[in-house]
Amino acid sequence: MFLYGESREQMMHVAGLMPFTPAPDSSPDQLRELMNELRMGATVHPPWNLKLRTPDLLWNPLQAWVEEPAVDLEYHVRRSALPSPGDERELGILVSRLHGHHVDFHRPPWEMHLIEGLERGRFAWYVKIHHSLIDGYTAMQTLTSALSHDPDERDRPLFFSIPQRSRAPAPVEPSEPGEAAATTGTRGINYPELLAAVREQYGASKTVVRALGNVVQSSRAGDHELISPLEAPRCVFNARISKSRRFATQRLPIDRLRAIAKAAGGTLNDVVLALSAGSLRTYLLEQQALPAAPLVAMLPVAIRAKDELGGGNAVGAILATLATDTGDPAERLARIIASTTRAKQQLQGMSKAAILQYSALLTAPSMLQMIPSTAGHLRPTFNVVISNVPGPEQPLYFRGARLEASYPMSIPVHGQALNITCSSYAGMMCFGFTGCRDTVPHLQRLAVYCGEALSDLEHAVLQ
Amino acid sequence: MFLYGESREQMMHVAGLMPFTPAPDSSPDQLRELMNELRMGATVHPPWNLKLRTPDLLWNPLQAWVEEPAVDLEYHVRRSALPSPGDERELGILVSRLHGHHVDFHRPPWEMHLIEGLERGRFAWYVKIHHSLIDGYTAMQTLTSALSHDPDERDRPLFFSIPQRSRAPAPVEPSEPGEAAATTGTRGINYPELLAAVREQYGASKTVVRALGNVVQSSRAGDHELISPLEAPRCVFNARISKSRRFATQRLPIDRLRAIAKAAGGTLNDVVLALSAGSLRTYLLEQQALPAAPLVAMLPVAIRAKDELGGGNAVGAILATLATDTGDPAERLARIIASTTRAKQQLQGMSKAAILQYSALLTAPSMLQMIPSTAGHLRPTFNVVISNVPGPEQPLYFRGARLEASYPMSIPVHGQALNITCSSYAGMMCFGFTGCRDTVPHLQRLAVYCGEALSDLEHAVLQ
Repeated sequence: MFLYGESREQMMHVAGLMPFTPAPDSSPDQLRELMNELRMGATVHPPWNLKLRTPDLLWNPLQAWVEEPAVDLEYHVRRSALPSPGDERELGILVSRLHGHHVDFHRPPWEMHLIEGLERGRFAWYVKIHHSLIDGYTAMQTLTSALSHDPDERDRPLFFSIPQRSRAPAPVEPSEPGEAAATTGTRGINYPELLAAVREQYGASKTVVRALGNVVQSSRAGDHELISPLEAPRCVFNARISKSRRFATQRLPIDRLRAIAKAAGGTLNDVVLALSAGSLRTYLLEQQALPAAPLVAMLPVAIRAKDELGGGNAVGAILATLATDTGDPAERLARIIASTTRAKQQLQGMSKAAILQYSALLTAPSMLQMIPSTAGHLRPTFNVVISNVPGPEQPLYFRGARLEASYPMSIPVHGQALNITCSSYAGMMCFGFTGCRDTVPHLQRLAVYCGEALSDLEHAVLQ
Repeated sequence: MFLYGESREQMMHVAGLMPFTPAPDSSPDQLRELMNELRMGATVHPPWNLKLRTPDLLWNPLQAWVEEPAVDLEYHVRRSALPSPGDERELGILVSRLHGHHVDFHRPPWEMHLIEGLERGRFAWYVKIHHSLIDGYTAMQTLTSALSHDPDERDRPLFFSIPQRSRAPAPVEPSEPGEAAATTGTRGINYPELLAAVREQYGASKTVVRALGNVVQSSRAGDHELISPLEAPRCVFNARISKSRRFATQRLPIDRLRAIAKAAGGTLNDVVLALSAGSLRTYLLEQQALPAAPLVAMLPVAIRAKDELGGGNAVGAILATLATDTGDPAERLARIIASTTRAKQQLQGMSKAAILQYSALLTAPSMLQMIPSTAGHLRPTFNVVISNVPGPEQPLYFRGARLEASYPMSIPVHGQALNITCSSYAGMMCFGFTGCRDTVPHLQRLAVYCGEALSDLEHAVLQ
């Protein structure tokens, strides 16, 4: 699926932007010395040494991963520097530009950029990975698990030189009040898995048919809590995209988000949706492009399925309203909570296979949007993808340098020009807004408005 | 032609790398201030505001250039910085990487990168232009003509804000001894013009048939001075290319080259060929890949045609031996001079149309190499393209910063993984070696060996 979608404008890679504060005693040439160390030779473990068997024929049905015997590390690991003054703006410009370049399928499809010249002697990593090699959730896990909890560990190798354990199932987050058995948004949606499930058992099971029937009926009956694929309004984000990207970040204390969630009887993820919704409303109003009907978000979700009580997770998708038609932040959050609660109830009691089928049927029309000729013509199934990838809770270090934040960069596609993905790290929620440069002008304002939405929500809910 | 050739691996853009030494009194933030000035608004004159009418269908027979009403200058003009220590190696790595990225055909297909962080407070421009918008010769002319001869002129706009005069015919260089009426290598070969000429008058004229007949006959008769398209040996450079580039530069005093040319009875361009040949021989010997037969170079040439005595130039192509089978630099130069002299004599007395036809027929088989499926399978018509673009003779300045050199970066294609283009500037010959990263490993050695070839040649010819 991710190879099929690749084109001159659509690039199916995800990335992480990770700024670091060096240790006080570290060499100013830390990155240069790291590069020299790599030039002396380093081991590259799977999957980082895997490349496509037929890179010139991406859609080959016999496509497969093969080992590259001589990984050219000087190609994959690159040094960069920010022009003065090395502030957040210059960093945003550089990583937007890096995110707009294709990976080379004649090599293992990943790149690591070591960026120096950030203000106050700081540096950053930008790590790009094609989604066909590894999904966003696993990517984030792999990157952070290669860091150390110990600031004094100074000889840690880079992530690609650390052998991978066999793919561990996604860890289940502790349940929150009001979250029932479903945890929302724990990994990027796995389209190939969805499609395979649909292909295998196309005659959708009775459970799925009943669930889909419920969704469509409730929509017709004026039930605005359960969102159907027929409800998303047309919106400027649901257009064809160009080759260039914009990226902006925001970082908010999780404690403040949790306090709101608790007061409103929702989950942390509901608050993430409400902050995104508040930001989108302000942005679209300013662009004079706010649809009259509320925006619909698609959320990848991890569900503990009825038939897998042992801890196995299914990955599916739900649709939720963003209630962008109201100016009242408290009402907006309440409607979001009602909407996600109903959607998750819908998934309760389904088997893993049924959840996959259901999610595929729910989001299938949006996949057609990835085909250039239909993008922007079909009515969108949803307006924006919002993902929440849980990250490490403790501070992490690379050779004494402290990881400041971990921002996910995702994939705009034709028909979905904006993606909001956030990741928790050491008490902060790190938001990454990834958009098409032309379809989402002034994208950095979304990050600013997201911060303002937190104050607004606190004011409305906690007073 | 240049749109047809564009693919994920083949990118039909040329570029110039121009390092500058800032004025002693200039602001350390000169480039940042320049960028702010552009953000305030700048006029963009043709051709820099032209984009393709159907960017998603590059081969559209109705393809045309249309004006972009709102050029996004923040997209086209970009700041970059070198990581420490900001030496030639880091500059080479950065521009190689920039040269390996596609232009965006949804916008005017050019980019200007302002690179800071070079050693001793210096900076550089890297300007990338798609060959479909403007040819390499005109590009170099436009870039340098937008600079000033006056170091005290501090308010000069950038090249795209200066209205272009109507395309002036290429200035004719003063003839050198032994050069007769043909000047070699004054601009990039204009394939579309060649192809159009062939298409218009496909029944090649008697002159052309006779000339081609001479070439092939002389080859069969053991005349090794006139090189035919049947003589080039197989060589590692004539292979499929990947997406990534390597770039290296060399700068040599023109006076030293002229002294050799004079002593050997050849032209400046013959010495450029001899230096390239010496470098290629050393490089290929080291790679244990030197063909037994001498390499053949293709040279774009500007010719004063018989029917255009008034100064009009025709652009054609000739083939020349590089005599890489001999270890004697003096003998190598002598054979090169004999070969280019015979090839130019061949063109003498032809009309402009005949020269175009002749050149097209001579190089036509090589165009087939640009089609991926044939690349590396056909026997090459020539092994390497070597161009010599005359540049300005006087020192040039941008707002007080002195242009140090002007290095051309050209286009490797399938079947031609290495390109050598040089340009004169202020008494120096500036060589740019552009190659495919994978097909031409250690490309920077070619630049080093080119410098060594000059000493060898002086030793052999001037003693």
